[in-house]
Amino acid sequence: MNSAAAFIAVDWGTSNARFALCDHGGQALEIRQGPGAVASRGSFAGIFDAQTAGWRATHGPLPAYLCGMVGSKAGWIEAPYLPAPCDLQAIASAPARVRDGVFVVPGVRCTNPLGAPDLMRGEETQLLGASCSGILGEALHIVCLPGTHTKWATISGGRLVDFLTTPTGELFAALCNHTVLVQDNGLPATHSEAGFGRGLAQSAVHRGLLLHQLFQARSLRLDGQLAHDGAASWMSGLLIGADVNGALSVLADRDPRGSVTIIGAPALTALYARALAQAGRESVEVDGATATIAGLAQVFRQQEPQRS
Amino acid sequence: MNSAAAFIAVDWGTSNARFALCDHGGQALEIRQGPGAVASRGSFAGIFDAQTAGWRATHGPLPAYLCGMVGSKAGWIEAPYLPAPCDLQAIASAPARVRDGVFVVPGVRCTNPLGAPDLMRGEETQLLGASCSGILGEALHIVCLPGTHTKWATISGGRLVDFLTTPTGELFAALCNHTVLVQDNGLPATHSEAGFGRGLAQSAVHRGLLLHQLFQARSLRLDGQLAHDGAASWMSGLLIGADVNGALSVLADRDPRGSVTIIGAPALTALYARALAQAGRESVEVDGATATIAGLAQVFRQQEPQRS
Repeated sequence: MNSAAAFIAVDWGTSNARFALCDHGGQALEIRQGPGAVASRGSFAGIFDAQTAGWRATHGPLPAYLCGMVGSKAGWIEAPYLPAPCDLQAIASAPARVRDGVFVVPGVRCTNPLGAPDLMRGEETQLLGASCSGILGEALHIVCLPGTHTKWATISGGRLVDFLTTPTGELFAALCNHTVLVQDNGLPATHSEAGFGRGLAQSAVHRGLLLHQLFQARSLRLDGQLAHDGAASWMSGLLIGADVNGALSVLADRDPRGSVTIIGAPALTALYARALAQAGRESVEVDGATATIAGLAQVFRQQEPQRS
Repeated sequence: MNSAAAFIAVDWGTSNARFALCDHGGQALEIRQGPGAVASRGSFAGIFDAQTAGWRATHGPLPAYLCGMVGSKAGWIEAPYLPAPCDLQAIASAPARVRDGVFVVPGVRCTNPLGAPDLMRGEETQLLGASCSGILGEALHIVCLPGTHTKWATISGGRLVDFLTTPTGELFAALCNHTVLVQDNGLPATHSEAGFGRGLAQSAVHRGLLLHQLFQARSLRLDGQLAHDGAASWMSGLLIGADVNGALSVLADRDPRGSVTIIGAPALTALYARALAQAGRESVEVDGATATIAGLAQVFRQQEPQRS
C-alpha cells in the first residue's frame, strides 16, 4: 500500500506554492501549482481548500504539512522560529497546528557568523529532507541554498549550527528591473553564457568591491564590450561570484576545503556550482523541490504516530 | 553691468533640470526647475524654449550652456566624451553645438582604477566649477561627487586623472522601493539618525561583505533591534559606508591621508562627510548646484570671445 495517498505536502513560498499529494514513503503522486504567500494573503484557507478538495474527496481527510512563508506573520499562521543550533529532527517535532490535520513547519532563527540575527523559513525543511535522505552526512559541512534570499548553512552531525542570508536573488531582480545598470531600453533579461562567465570572472578580480563594480554592467555596454542582452547575465555572474567568495571567506574557519552541498532549483544550483568551482570548491547539487517533499515526509512520519 | 543677464546655465540631469539666468560673473539672477532628461525625451527643444522664452524676450538672444544627461544618446544631442586624463579647462573648450547659441558640455570617459571603462556627464562641469573657484588646489586630491551614480575622481594640477562610479543612490532607491529588505508594509522612508549611525558603524565592522550584511535591514527589524522607519536610514548608512571604505581602499595609493572634497547636494554631502570621518578622513563639502553654475560660467567665459 506504499503507493496509496497518505499526506499532502505544501511548499508555500513568497512567490509560488507547490501542493503535492504524497504516499507514505514521501513519493509525490500528483503536484499542483498555486499562488505564493504574498498573493494568498488573507485567503490561505480558501486557496488550500480549493487546491486540495479533489484529493480529500478521493482519499479522505489526509493530513497536510506546510512550510515556507505561509508560516510568517503575513502568512496563514505565524509558526515559531526554533533557535539554532538545533537538531534538524527537532524541526519535525514542532509543527504549528493551523486547524485539524493542517500543520506548518517552524522556521529557524540564529545569530549568524557576522553576529547579526538571521532567519529562515522553508530552507530548514529542505535541510531536514536532505539530512533524512543521507545526503548531508555527519561531518561538519557547508550547505548553500540559493534563491531570493540565499542561505549559507553550517551542518554538523545532523545539527544546524547557524546560517547567513544573502539576498542575492532579490538584489538581482531589483537591479535588473529598477535600475539603468542592466536595462535602459526594456530589453529582455535572457541568459547569456558569455555575460555570466565574464561577470563571474570579474567577481574574483576585485573581491569585496561589489558596489564599486556594479556600474560596469552599464559602462561595458556603452563601451561595446558587453552585448545589451548580456548585461543581466553579467550581473548574475558578478553577484553570485561575490556571494560565494564572501560566504567562503566568512565560513573559512568552518570547513576550509570540503565539498559544498547546493540545494535549490537546478538552473540556479548550476550557476552556484560554477562560482564554487571558480573558488576552488567541489560541490554536490540537490534538487530543492525534492528535498522539500522529503523534509515534509519526515514531519509526516514523526507526527503520524501521535495523530493515530 | 555685472548684474546684467549674460547667459543661461542649464543642469539637465536624469531626474531634474535646473535653468539659471546668470550674469557675466556667473551669479544666478533667477532659477527655474524643469523636468529631467528622462521625462523630456523627444521634447528637449520645446521644454528649453518654454523655460527660457521670458528671459530671451527680456534680455535678447542669450547664449545657453547645458550639462548633464541632456548630452547623452537619449538626450537632446549626443555630446562627445573627452578621454581622461584631461585638463578640466579642456571641458570648457569643447561644447557641442545643438543650434545657434545653445551648447552642451561634453562628458568624460576613462579607464577607472579597477581597469574598467567609466563615464560621467554633469560631474565634469562641477569639477571644472570647483577648480575655477580655487577649491581644488593643485595637489593630487580625491573628490567625491555623491548621487544616483556617485563618482570618485582623482584631481591633480587642474587635471582630471580618472574616476570610479558607484551606483550607490540608485542601489539605495531600488532596495528601498523594490525589496522586502527595507520595506514590507509600505512605510515611508524617513531619515533616522539612529538607523543611519548604526548602518554606518556596521559597514566598518565587516568590510567587503556588503551583500552579506544587506539582510540585516530586515532581520534587525524582525528582531526588534531596529525600528521599522529606521531601516531605510540603516541601509543608507551601510551603503554609504561601504562606498567610502571601498573607494578609499581602491584609491589608497593616490592620496592616503589628505582631505577629501565632497561636491553635491548638502543633505547628501553631510552623510558622506560622516562616513569619511569614520574612515579617518577630513573632508570639505561644496554645494553641487553652485559648482555646476560656476563650471557653466567658465564655459561661457571661454566660448564668448569666439562667438562675439
